[in-house]
Amino acid sequence: MSRPYRVAILGATGAVGQELLELLESRNFPLADLKLLASARSAGQKISFKGESLAVEAVDDKSFDGIDIVLASAGGSTSKAMAPKAVEAGAVVIDNSSAFRMNPEVPLVVPEVNPEAASEHKGIIANPNCTTILMAVAVYPLHKVKKIRRIIAATYQSASGAGAKAMAEVQTQASAILSGQQPVASIFPYPLAFNLFPHNTPLNEMGYCEEEMKMVNETRKIFGTQEIRVSATCVRVPVLRAHSEAINLEFDEPFDKDEARKILSSAPGVKLVDDWQGNYFPMPIDATGRDEVLVGRIRQDISHNCGLELWLCGDQIRKGAALNAVQIAELLVEKNIVKPKLAVALT
Amino acid sequence: MSRPYRVAILGATGAVGQELLELLESRNFPLADLKLLASARSAGQKISFKGESLAVEAVDDKSFDGIDIVLASAGGSTSKAMAPKAVEAGAVVIDNSSAFRMNPEVPLVVPEVNPEAASEHKGIIANPNCTTILMAVAVYPLHKVKKIRRIIAATYQSASGAGAKAMAEVQTQASAILSGQQPVASIFPYPLAFNLFPHNTPLNEMGYCEEEMKMVNETRKIFGTQEIRVSATCVRVPVLRAHSEAINLEFDEPFDKDEARKILSSAPGVKLVDDWQGNYFPMPIDATGRDEVLVGRIRQDISHNCGLELWLCGDQIRKGAALNAVQIAELLVEKNIVKPKLAVALT
Repeated sequence: MSRPYRVAILGATGAVGQELLELLESRNFPLADLKLLASARSAGQKISFKGESLAVEAVDDKSFDGIDIVLASAGGSTSKAMAPKAVEAGAVVIDNSSAFRMNPEVPLVVPEVNPEAASEHKGIIANPNCTTILMAVAVYPLHKVKKIRRIIAATYQSASGAGAKAMAEVQTQASAILSGQQPVASIFPYPLAFNLFPHNTPLNEMGYCEEEMKMVNETRKIFGTQEIRVSATCVRVPVLRAHSEAINLEFDEPFDKDEARKILSSAPGVKLVDDWQGNYFPMPIDATGRDEVLVGRIRQDISHNCGLELWLCGDQIRKGAALNAVQIAELLVEKNIVKPKLAVALT
Repeated sequence: MSRPYRVAILGATGAVGQELLELLESRNFPLADLKLLASARSAGQKISFKGESLAVEAVDDKSFDGIDIVLASAGGSTSKAMAPKAVEAGAVVIDNSSAFRMNPEVPLVVPEVNPEAASEHKGIIANPNCTTILMAVAVYPLHKVKKIRRIIAATYQSASGAGAKAMAEVQTQASAILSGQQPVASIFPYPLAFNLFPHNTPLNEMGYCEEEMKMVNETRKIFGTQEIRVSATCVRVPVLRAHSEAINLEFDEPFDKDEARKILSSAPGVKLVDDWQGNYFPMPIDATGRDEVLVGRIRQDISHNCGLELWLCGDQIRKGAALNAVQIAELLVEKNIVKPKLAVALT
């Protein structure tokens, strides 16, 4: 039996925070204590956990005293301000924001890919970007067998990547359009219902948006190689909470599609949905609420003799964010990377 | 002044047929007479054209007597049965179905790309597949300057590609979901509202669906070269009537993005929507109802020194189908490729 840990969730009231709570409960994480932290605005809000009603506390410098593990999902600026305080208090922070991901002192971990990196932490472990996690889980098992040289990705990203309010916005817009009214956009810059647009994060001087550069740089860091070349086109689509990705892979040598399918059929975190008879492949509605990344349409790229094409869908809130963070926490427990300060179980 | 032509629309009551009517009227096509043809089921239906009410006639072997140009948009099996009858009657058929596209005797024409092919017709001219037309208009101006070696495309295809009933279905599904009910799928195999799925046309032994192989084979035929390698992932998305495409191009040599942008800024049928300051690029809602293919996000591919990435949106019913067909008809008139049998104008 694992010893019990004192855990804090920072950003407990958001879409990812809610999923973190659900996962800690359903996966029976060995908790001694659970603290729910958020901005002062959300303080006092009650959240049910394992039949108990827990009050959300406003986060401050003292919030992390005695805490073993912090699951942070409150945005980059909150993480930048608060993670160092938590580390100072002796906690390990698993951070869902992009604040520390490319910091060379901070491991960037997908447990199915580079679990060993977690033990090199100096107090903070970063959870990768959602699109990157989903792609990494699907393509790393192939990379282990034959090196990937180049990836060209096109994404179909759900509203949930921009939070719970964005999910509500696309539904409100759809409702307006269906009753003949103009859709109103406030979270997103443009209407998303019955529409789509390139991901609206800031663009760099090469013309790639931040989301795309995350796929480029985080993939390299997670795979531990600077030699994979990646190009991506990230697009927001009117889907609620599962991302899809069309992935073109180029290897150093030919990779047989049947071998790829066999490898992925038993790869951790992957569920093969590759029904050629039924013309049935991964869809967001099937990925929603699931832990696995659904992968299918694995085929030889007819434009390149060392190419493979594949298609994936994964729950953006779950494996794209909350589940990966909880899996990292489980890794810290299993590998004894974090030792609990308390020895008294939550009863 | 152009001489007047006797034109028949086959499939006048469908989504593309309706758009053909609108375009013949708004573009003031030199008509002597307009005959509306459809299946027996739609016969008798009245359609307004230039203030007149025209009755839809059931198509039969005699429907094409005296007709100069047939705009056919009634599906592959109707075209296969009826186009030879129309040719026998002395008409030129511009066929929107896939029935004749890859027939070596039949020109496959995008007027901005290969107008010269139209004059080689033997009675039938094929209108390409919608995704292929949109891509061809956007990338051919670059191919003319430096040869394209390879294209990797991922599409975001609207419901309209499956007809007017499919457009209605996605709206009905959205409405059901918003009121907490299960969406019903009948035109498409799966719910499309707030969902998406790989294009559901039959798959070949290589794992490419028919829609994807159209992009491969039709692009080569239109560009007049078998040397362009193409791979595509075609995906149906919950958008009503404009398709989007993420296009990765590989050339024989480096292609500067600023040169590409300059070429596309004056390319026929293209509207550059490439606002890097405003992070504003082509969107389906902006492409809907427009003649041009909107092209933007033109950037150097950071994964390949001879690569360019671009993003496009185009109205599937308009340039993807009806407009391209009417432009071919205009070409036949302008170049005197078809001579009218009558010399009496419609008064």
